[in-house]
Amino acid sequence: MIAVHIENTQVSVKRKAAPKPKPGHALIRLLCGGICNTDIELLRGYYGFKGTPGHEFVGEVVESTDPRWTGKRVVGEINLACGQCDWCKRGLGRHCPERTVLGIVKHPGAFAEYLTLPEQNLREVPKNVPTEQAVFTEPIAAACEILDQVKIPQGAPVAVLGDGKLGLLIAQVLQAHGAEVHLYGRHRAKLEIAEQAGVRTAFSNKLPRAAYDYTVDATGSPEGLMSAAAMTRPRGTLILKSTVHGAVPLDAAPLIVNEITLVGSRCGRFEPALKLLRNGKIRPDRMIADQFPLSDAPLAFARAQERGILKVLLWR
Amino acid sequence: MIAVHIENTQVSVKRKAAPKPKPGHALIRLLCGGICNTDIELLRGYYGFKGTPGHEFVGEVVESTDPRWTGKRVVGEINLACGQCDWCKRGLGRHCPERTVLGIVKHPGAFAEYLTLPEQNLREVPKNVPTEQAVFTEPIAAACEILDQVKIPQGAPVAVLGDGKLGLLIAQVLQAHGAEVHLYGRHRAKLEIAEQAGVRTAFSNKLPRAAYDYTVDATGSPEGLMSAAAMTRPRGTLILKSTVHGAVPLDAAPLIVNEITLVGSRCGRFEPALKLLRNGKIRPDRMIADQFPLSDAPLAFARAQERGILKVLLWR
Repeated sequence: MIAVHIENTQVSVKRKAAPKPKPGHALIRLLCGGICNTDIELLRGYYGFKGTPGHEFVGEVVESTDPRWTGKRVVGEINLACGQCDWCKRGLGRHCPERTVLGIVKHPGAFAEYLTLPEQNLREVPKNVPTEQAVFTEPIAAACEILDQVKIPQGAPVAVLGDGKLGLLIAQVLQAHGAEVHLYGRHRAKLEIAEQAGVRTAFSNKLPRAAYDYTVDATGSPEGLMSAAAMTRPRGTLILKSTVHGAVPLDAAPLIVNEITLVGSRCGRFEPALKLLRNGKIRPDRMIADQFPLSDAPLAFARAQERGILKVLLWR
Repeated sequence: MIAVHIENTQVSVKRKAAPKPKPGHALIRLLCGGICNTDIELLRGYYGFKGTPGHEFVGEVVESTDPRWTGKRVVGEINLACGQCDWCKRGLGRHCPERTVLGIVKHPGAFAEYLTLPEQNLREVPKNVPTEQAVFTEPIAAACEILDQVKIPQGAPVAVLGDGKLGLLIAQVLQAHGAEVHLYGRHRAKLEIAEQAGVRTAFSNKLPRAAYDYTVDATGSPEGLMSAAAMTRPRGTLILKSTVHGAVPLDAAPLIVNEITLVGSRCGRFEPALKLLRNGKIRPDRMIADQFPLSDAPLAFARAQERGILKVLLWR
């Protein structure tokens, strides 16, 4: 099979042996994959990653222990948990200390003709959701995770800072939840995507101070985090949804003086994301910037790294 | 009257005119004051402070608009709120944007023969609580604030990092609340104070990783914050109770990956603190390191800055 390969900050397409699924795992034929910022970071060498990346995907099960999966169009939760530890027993395998992670930590990724995943990680894609929408399930789930962690009341104003891929999805998910979302960003065209979902938007060159009980930082920058803190009212909640690499200078004093609660937030359950897609509550395909065949992955990765580019898809 | 005076990183004792209370404010004769780390920071020039410091005090009301206060032995909430804004109406005058703060922001402090405070800030000291215990009410209230912000279940193991004044009070308050407190510090003698209150202690040279659902950082150091984050389990809560000055390098990645909730925490209500003192649930006098007359404030401040010194009291 062909598979995307990252090594020494280079991306290439290689011939590799198709993976053999372990018992309880399914063999999945890729239909479509989405390039995420994490993939770009793997390419840039932040984690010493070597191998096949890719964790946003839609595929078709070609081989499974439980025959009911065979032939199904699926997405898959990316954390492969041990199933035995306290975290797994609490339904939080996403925090299992023994976990591997699809295309990120010790499990070959989805940007290949075939991949494997435990069947318990699979979720069937609803018939009415096209593949180019379903491929957004994983990042939508990450956006939905906020609602699993923080109770945001209906109608509450929420500021989302950052109009990148994750910021746009978060704004749409929280708006669909019933919050009054105000998205602050830098790009007219990106803000318009959120506006189509009913989100109010503004440019982030002038940000209100101490104005929101709920703020989400999705900027991916240290400055963004401090800006989001300044936008948060005393006793408010600031959700930290961007991955910032290495130690960043943070002024802890405003967090203490204003008694702000800072909530780190990562991956989420797929069910709420698939429900939003099934009910047409979120239309992520507006975020597709470009599409390439898997064999053109180097071009696709180059495109995904261009300034201001949203989602780049890879098709088998 | 005599009053302590801070200016240009120097502390002195000056003659000043006794303050005249505004309507609704009481004139209070100082009985005893406690030197807090914030006072040391004011002296070091962190806030450009100039004037009379002091916010931990016990006094006797000598003049009041409401005659019931006259003659009462009192402590006082340190935030002078406007009483009109949304925060004040929600009972959170401690976050009133118009507030001044006793001995810190635009209101002369308690290290003087006389001070003034709004009568609504006053709390009578229970008869059975000696003055040298009651003078700890304000920092005990700051420790109690944690329980107003975070629901810590009975019997839950809680790690407190830092055996300074605030760390010791937090450990004792959370232990009195019914948590199983583990205090990590560097000083045998300080850890023993917490042990007398039933707190388990250990040296902080070797800290367990991902071991607690609740962690309190009371170290006052950027390294302490990151250590406390590493001790916190995924989805756990890290309470940030130390003031660290200026921007500190913080690695946000573990907070996000482990979905940790970081709660900034500052001043608290006095009622729970006075209740703990009245019921003998906390014995802060074990933390008194030295005592001076008000006229020897420069000596007292020098003593308070010595390495490893706990509470230094000033007596009228």
